[in-house]
Amino acid sequence: MTNPSKIALIGKGNVATHLKKALSKYSLTQIDSRILENIPDADVYIFAVKDDALPEVLNRFPMREGLFVHTAGSIAMDVFENHADRYGVLYPLQTFSKDRTVDFKDIPLFIETNNHPDRLLLESIANSISNQVVYLSSEKREKLHLSAVFANNFVNHMYYEAAKILEEENLSPQLLLPLIEETANKITLMHPREAQTGPAIRGDEKTMKKHLELLEGNPRLQELYEKISRSIQNK
Amino acid sequence: MTNPSKIALIGKGNVATHLKKALSKYSLTQIDSRILENIPDADVYIFAVKDDALPEVLNRFPMREGLFVHTAGSIAMDVFENHADRYGVLYPLQTFSKDRTVDFKDIPLFIETNNHPDRLLLESIANSISNQVVYLSSEKREKLHLSAVFANNFVNHMYYEAAKILEEENLSPQLLLPLIEETANKITLMHPREAQTGPAIRGDEKTMKKHLELLEGNPRLQELYEKISRSIQNK
Repeated sequence: MTNPSKIALIGKGNVATHLKKALSKYSLTQIDSRILENIPDADVYIFAVKDDALPEVLNRFPMREGLFVHTAGSIAMDVFENHADRYGVLYPLQTFSKDRTVDFKDIPLFIETNNHPDRLLLESIANSISNQVVYLSSEKREKLHLSAVFANNFVNHMYYEAAKILEEENLSPQLLLPLIEETANKITLMHPREAQTGPAIRGDEKTMKKHLELLEGNPRLQELYEKISRSIQNK
Repeated sequence: MTNPSKIALIGKGNVATHLKKALSKYSLTQIDSRILENIPDADVYIFAVKDDALPEVLNRFPMREGLFVHTAGSIAMDVFENHADRYGVLYPLQTFSKDRTVDFKDIPLFIETNNHPDRLLLESIANSISNQVVYLSSEKREKLHLSAVFANNFVNHMYYEAAKILEEENLSPQLLLPLIEETANKITLMHPREAQTGPAIRGDEKTMKKHLELLEGNPRLQELYEKISRSIQNK
């Protein structure tokens, strides 16, 4: 199995932009998913478009010989069933922003293919850009994606609520940054089970009651506080 | 106002241990809160004990002339009312672990006193160990502490749930570390409002429904997923 000489990368968003940099040693053509004309022949077509946009982009994409893969955590491999014979997934477990550089070497890549030779092909590409390549079924990848929703989306929402509470007191949310950084660093050394602190885990009902009173006038946040606290206690 | 020559530090836990290191340029005596005998005379008594233990420790503490301060985010300054004439608070906004060193210079310190001369005294101590010293009322500090519960305790619980989902698939929770690190780093550059991504914020009901199905058999986690997702959408 030799390295593929030609990759077509469909998409212009954050994932596509970062992937393009990581794949710079390949002969790569980037394609705007809105303008699917004059598609070049390639060995691998990587669809790095928004999860919900993928089916529609595939419907407009011409038939081709190569390996079709997507980068979406929440979409099963068989989305390609009616669009290609050889297909798979290359899912980077990371959040990408326009203005931040990330080192792909540190990003876990989860791959899947519908046939064994293409597994070797996709593994060789993945291994050339990341130190952590894991072969994973679509079923397990769904769980992984769900896990990432907790670790990224839900965590960020906690940051948001914390920031808002400070802003209402005319305090800068920046004051939280050392705490947030240390909270993330702590679990590189211990399981989050051991890292849990706060009124809920120590059963400090008095402080929790006071916090709920402080949130009076904001029933949504009160409910959120209560549910998460109970979840900490019931784990 | 000269620097105090003598500090008595009551407590042997994580906060006390880290404070002791930070205050090494002072003449400092550390006191075990369980053994309150032969208490030396000091200019400042710092009570770095567990929030819920503080009232009981104060009841056993002998009367003294100096400034009494505690380090508890959730406890109002007037806890000292019947125990001292001069009192205040020195609250470090950080999570402390036994095995991790932290640089106190980066930790925001929130102080409060019941009289102006002691404000200057406490400010001089606080400024000697941290670059971010903020004078804050007990009322506002309660809100700050509530905010820290979201940014630290609740965030860690999200890490925990994410880890557990992976472990059930025999995947290592370590796979999440690059994502968790980047999620925390991202908000050093943008407000969490702008950093929010995921199915909830983009109104992707299909993915949310699938996630709720994946959580079947775990009603607690289903409810948590639903509440946080709705909170993201309603913000």
